[in-house]
Amino acid sequence: MNNYTPFSEIGEFGFINRIDQLNTIKNKNIIKGIGDDAAVINNANEVTLISTDILIENVHFDITYTNFHYLGYKAAVVNFSDIIAMNSYPMAITVSIAISNRYSVEDIENLYKGILEACKKYNVDLVGGDTTSSRYGLFISITVIGQNKKDKIVYRNGAKETDLICVSGNLGAAYYALLLLEREKKVFIKNSIQPSLEKYEYIIRRQLKPEARIDIIKNLEELSIIPTSMIDISDGLASEIIHICNQSDKGCYIYEEKIPINYNSENFANEVNIHPITAALNGGEDYELLFTVPVKLYEEINKIDDITVIGYITNKDEGRNMETKSGNVIQLKALGWNSFNNNDEKL
Amino acid sequence: MNNYTPFSEIGEFGFINRIDQLNTIKNKNIIKGIGDDAAVINNANEVTLISTDILIENVHFDITYTNFHYLGYKAAVVNFSDIIAMNSYPMAITVSIAISNRYSVEDIENLYKGILEACKKYNVDLVGGDTTSSRYGLFISITVIGQNKKDKIVYRNGAKETDLICVSGNLGAAYYALLLLEREKKVFIKNSIQPSLEKYEYIIRRQLKPEARIDIIKNLEELSIIPTSMIDISDGLASEIIHICNQSDKGCYIYEEKIPINYNSENFANEVNIHPITAALNGGEDYELLFTVPVKLYEEINKIDDITVIGYITNKDEGRNMETKSGNVIQLKALGWNSFNNNDEKL
Repeated sequence: MNNYTPFSEIGEFGFINRIDQLNTIKNKNIIKGIGDDAAVINNANEVTLISTDILIENVHFDITYTNFHYLGYKAAVVNFSDIIAMNSYPMAITVSIAISNRYSVEDIENLYKGILEACKKYNVDLVGGDTTSSRYGLFISITVIGQNKKDKIVYRNGAKETDLICVSGNLGAAYYALLLLEREKKVFIKNSIQPSLEKYEYIIRRQLKPEARIDIIKNLEELSIIPTSMIDISDGLASEIIHICNQSDKGCYIYEEKIPINYNSENFANEVNIHPITAALNGGEDYELLFTVPVKLYEEINKIDDITVIGYITNKDEGRNMETKSGNVIQLKALGWNSFNNNDEKL
Repeated sequence: MNNYTPFSEIGEFGFINRIDQLNTIKNKNIIKGIGDDAAVINNANEVTLISTDILIENVHFDITYTNFHYLGYKAAVVNFSDIIAMNSYPMAITVSIAISNRYSVEDIENLYKGILEACKKYNVDLVGGDTTSSRYGLFISITVIGQNKKDKIVYRNGAKETDLICVSGNLGAAYYALLLLEREKKVFIKNSIQPSLEKYEYIIRRQLKPEARIDIIKNLEELSIIPTSMIDISDGLASEIIHICNQSDKGCYIYEEKIPINYNSENFANEVNIHPITAALNGGEDYELLFTVPVKLYEEINKIDDITVIGYITNKDEGRNMETKSGNVIQLKALGWNSFNNNDEKL
């Protein structure tokens, strides 16, 4: 049996002390971390980037098929991904958590251990936060700070006509895993049989313990490539391409056959009869990068492993189009996730 | 009848557009606000301060006795107070909100209007956030960024022996208002009679629409006074003095008769039979400043209206003491708020 310490036993300060002992400040620019009214960060002539995300129990995650460590890891990584999507490195986070009394000190300590594992891997410091009780469920709100030289930051609005559209990794796996986990949860509730999920390990990891593509921005930096626009793919490829087109005032032309799909996703697609391209375009939570570079960098960009050129930027008037494998041209639409229509799913 | 638009009707992006139209960027150092993966802030050789707070429905607020506008205002101001308590000016916030479908677009727009009223008054920019659904209740997480010259930041740990202990404003009113509002809510539930609360207007405002003491740090700046330590009083005077003593490795000696109490609080104290000093020491949410300055600045500090010297810093071995009006010396204890029984505490 696991330890179970109720929060009332150690109190808030006792809990903060436990977390603080797990936390080692890594970045020399953190002047003051946890323990005052605010954290203090040195800037060394760089600008500050800030982004925030919330994760709500039974909206963004279901504790019946993840664990607190993974949940903490993912909560941190999805925030890092927003700074990385600005072509920048995350540096510090604050973590706010509201906890119902269903959960123990050990549960939330495991959540923080996951957060701190991600912090260690991505060289990010936990510098503050707020922990409180909630009447129902678990709420996690993380704010992430990054720094960069002003002229190295990449926005969504810089795509130019003829620019190549590139994506990292592969798309759709996280969405398939969500379908799988929902399916197996129903089976478990009905039959109390623990499912055997080994053969789905890849797609499950993509959902429960995703990574942000800090490696890609390092590779770009090594090749001195600054993309013209960039976004992370949290809501499906279609939605994200449309963001870039909207903010850059451009159109696009992509090729279905170029969209990268992992073979594990293809295998699962057959089980559920949802086409891999549908999952890639409209599924969420892949946390891959979508970016554009000038066409003259085609050979340079191909030097980076795990990047696929899927199309190019066009004039706005040409619209947002995808050429299917059969040669038809269809208009891209952002179905995406909608948090206000479907409570069970991620934004 | 008020407008009631369900969130599903306009969607998240529709809502963000509505809020963005209410929002005007005021600080020239905001390079990019809402609309990309992260906001970008220029630093101009200053360091960055960051702090975060969560407010949870039925833990930190009760929508039956506040309104969305006040709630937004307060949520912003209590965050500003954390940057002000570092002797610094707040500059930008991100706002994360999770909303159950009990609430309409208009409700949450009013919440944002309150946030933006506070932003306007304190010259702070709203630069990002995340809005999502929740199963139960309303959850507001705000992160605030400030900037300052490194050597002007005031921490909790700099108090020196013989330093004067100063507080701004008066203490206890916000706690009394909470007792009042709880009492009147019970009466209302029982009898459906709307209470007449005019005579309590002062203490109610202190609870529902508090201000952060940015005026005090401006006054200190004008007099070129940099306090040796500073904290905002969110959890009661006793708890906050003990934070300063702990972090500065010192003791203190304060005088009960010096603790500033407003006459409205004294009047209400008689109704509920809770001593004003008990409310000041252990009540929460006054958001006044507690700070220490060298004793040689006694005359200087008296030039600032609304500051009271309540005692002085001692050697650690002398403990944390209060001399009562009757001349007894008692040890200060932090009863304060307890996050897992009642309220929260900050990392």
